[in-house]
Amino acid sequence: MSVMVIKSSVRDYTVENTASLQAALAAASVGPEVYTIVDRALFALPHAAALEALDPGRTIKIEATEGQKSYARIETVFEQLLQSGFRRGCTLLGVGGGIVQDITCFVASVTFRGVPWDLIPTTLLAQCDSCIGSKSSINVGRFKNQIGTFYPPRKVFIANSVLETLSDDDLRSGLGEVIKLHLIAGGAEYDSLVRALQDGMPPVSALASLVKGSLAIKKRFIEEDEFDCGIRNFLNYGHTFGHAYESVTSFGIPHGIAVTLGVVSAAFASEQLGLAPPGYFREIDALARPYYSPYEKRLAGTDAEVIVQAMCLDKKSTRGSVNCILTRGPGRMEKVPLDPETELRSLVAEIKKEIFP
Amino acid sequence: MSVMVIKSSVRDYTVENTASLQAALAAASVGPEVYTIVDRALFALPHAAALEALDPGRTIKIEATEGQKSYARIETVFEQLLQSGFRRGCTLLGVGGGIVQDITCFVASVTFRGVPWDLIPTTLLAQCDSCIGSKSSINVGRFKNQIGTFYPPRKVFIANSVLETLSDDDLRSGLGEVIKLHLIAGGAEYDSLVRALQDGMPPVSALASLVKGSLAIKKRFIEEDEFDCGIRNFLNYGHTFGHAYESVTSFGIPHGIAVTLGVVSAAFASEQLGLAPPGYFREIDALARPYYSPYEKRLAGTDAEVIVQAMCLDKKSTRGSVNCILTRGPGRMEKVPLDPETELRSLVAEIKKEIFP
Repeated sequence: MSVMVIKSSVRDYTVENTASLQAALAAASVGPEVYTIVDRALFALPHAAALEALDPGRTIKIEATEGQKSYARIETVFEQLLQSGFRRGCTLLGVGGGIVQDITCFVASVTFRGVPWDLIPTTLLAQCDSCIGSKSSINVGRFKNQIGTFYPPRKVFIANSVLETLSDDDLRSGLGEVIKLHLIAGGAEYDSLVRALQDGMPPVSALASLVKGSLAIKKRFIEEDEFDCGIRNFLNYGHTFGHAYESVTSFGIPHGIAVTLGVVSAAFASEQLGLAPPGYFREIDALARPYYSPYEKRLAGTDAEVIVQAMCLDKKSTRGSVNCILTRGPGRMEKVPLDPETELRSLVAEIKKEIFP
Repeated sequence: MSVMVIKSSVRDYTVENTASLQAALAAASVGPEVYTIVDRALFALPHAAALEALDPGRTIKIEATEGQKSYARIETVFEQLLQSGFRRGCTLLGVGGGIVQDITCFVASVTFRGVPWDLIPTTLLAQCDSCIGSKSSINVGRFKNQIGTFYPPRKVFIANSVLETLSDDDLRSGLGEVIKLHLIAGGAEYDSLVRALQDGMPPVSALASLVKGSLAIKKRFIEEDEFDCGIRNFLNYGHTFGHAYESVTSFGIPHGIAVTLGVVSAAFASEQLGLAPPGYFREIDALARPYYSPYEKRLAGTDAEVIVQAMCLDKKSTRGSVNCILTRGPGRMEKVPLDPETELRSLVAEIKKEIFP
């Protein structure tokens, strides 16, 4: 069993590999003081047998939808927890993807001013990226991801075998963050990404290596800049475009696939602005296209101006400019403030022509 | 201007005295990046002129009621903030009593995963006690104070002159925490409390000294045990009974006055259990009665069993017992787990006979 330690000023925590979901649940020591928040959909998958280890009286099943990740709807999670006897001394366990993680992290951080929590990520996206970094992101009304906390788990248990049960789109969504992280790292990590992706969707054994590599990359950034004030901003690569793409399609594009589209959009913008060398966009797009297509079609009818407006709502934008992470090539990211009027509007119009005409 | 520094593992912060509310607002540098959450009732008081310094477009007026301090109703505060242009780089300012403080602290701690906030406490209770300690407490459904965060402000500005505008009941409510803190300290602090209270409600100049003394006492406990895992528990003296009294009267007793009733109840229980010497309850009750009477009458019709049930819901209780802070005398507090069946029920029945027959 390999164990990675993530350093945090709040509390160091670990990421352990386990053979199966059943083994992960056993390692998380499900017991009378553990209350679980779990993606309801997992009960319909081959996981169902392993999930029998969970006590129904201490298990809260949620719909893992963007709508459920809202401040208002999380009230029922608090009420279910408290009603079913959750007290000081109890801990929370999240079992699911990014949405379950966001909800579990947020609930753990504000219940009794903070209770311990563990996590079993069951999607590629959560395993390769979101499971470390301590962030929760919650929607309030029409404002996406504006509410949240930095609140690390105690332990993360990764069972790569659950990836075998995922749909192709779920895997492609996870690959969005894998692509992003390996591009941020550059060098040997970028080369290994190209090798892994060039023959189509990698098998689970290769995905397990990509997960491990992705977490090792992300670990460097979050340990150096835990509270996202500097270099950790680079992890937002592809996200300023990506979040806008999700928003304007009413979340009709899975998050990681929107990130992949964001990554190629940022590559295009970087080349246009003279940061990246000529041909860079084509190189990245050729690598990434099998992992986002045909979702770019969902953006085809959207006016460029609507996308610019959505980008201006990004919480990382400051008055008057949108802060984009752009690139001079793999491993060479830069934070670039773009003026919506004089720069972003024409860039997005060009991106639209090129990527989703 | 006297400045007290409160040490916190999150961030040290200061408490400064200012001459007036106007001076406090000036010191808090109200400006384009400052959004204010303020008790609507302050606009009806002599404060109204000073509050003109606040930009209406960046000011959220709230009802300072227990009902407003609920998870569900705080959603509108988030929406108003974000709708009116609150962004990263902006800060929050709370102006009001404990409820405004709880809401401002909670909102600041989870917006963009934490934004800076300042506080101008305008009640005696907030000035003498709640303004330091970094806690927020929010209700969810029928569960009181179960949600919250530890999240220190940057600066607290205390204008004692605002105490001149408060009702007698507001002042008496604040004195509940003053009494509690000076009893926890014991020794010279207890003697100064007795001197200050023996001739009826102290003038504002004397209240200002009590505020200063109370904060100096509380500072010792919160700096030694920031996250309330040990000695800080003593600050809960009077609260296990007090919270139950608030709850069973549907908040018909102001918080601090319920605490005073809790303090005398704990004195009674301590004497009954042989911790405090004979006569201790009479001594404390004689000192405190002018500051809680006639609110004890609101408890007169309540069944002792209902009070015990409410105490069992306290978030500091653990399975099977209610953790009460009891006392061997001023300055000599003890945490005592009481069994609801074999100990608490008969104690509460005796307290009822003695204090609210």
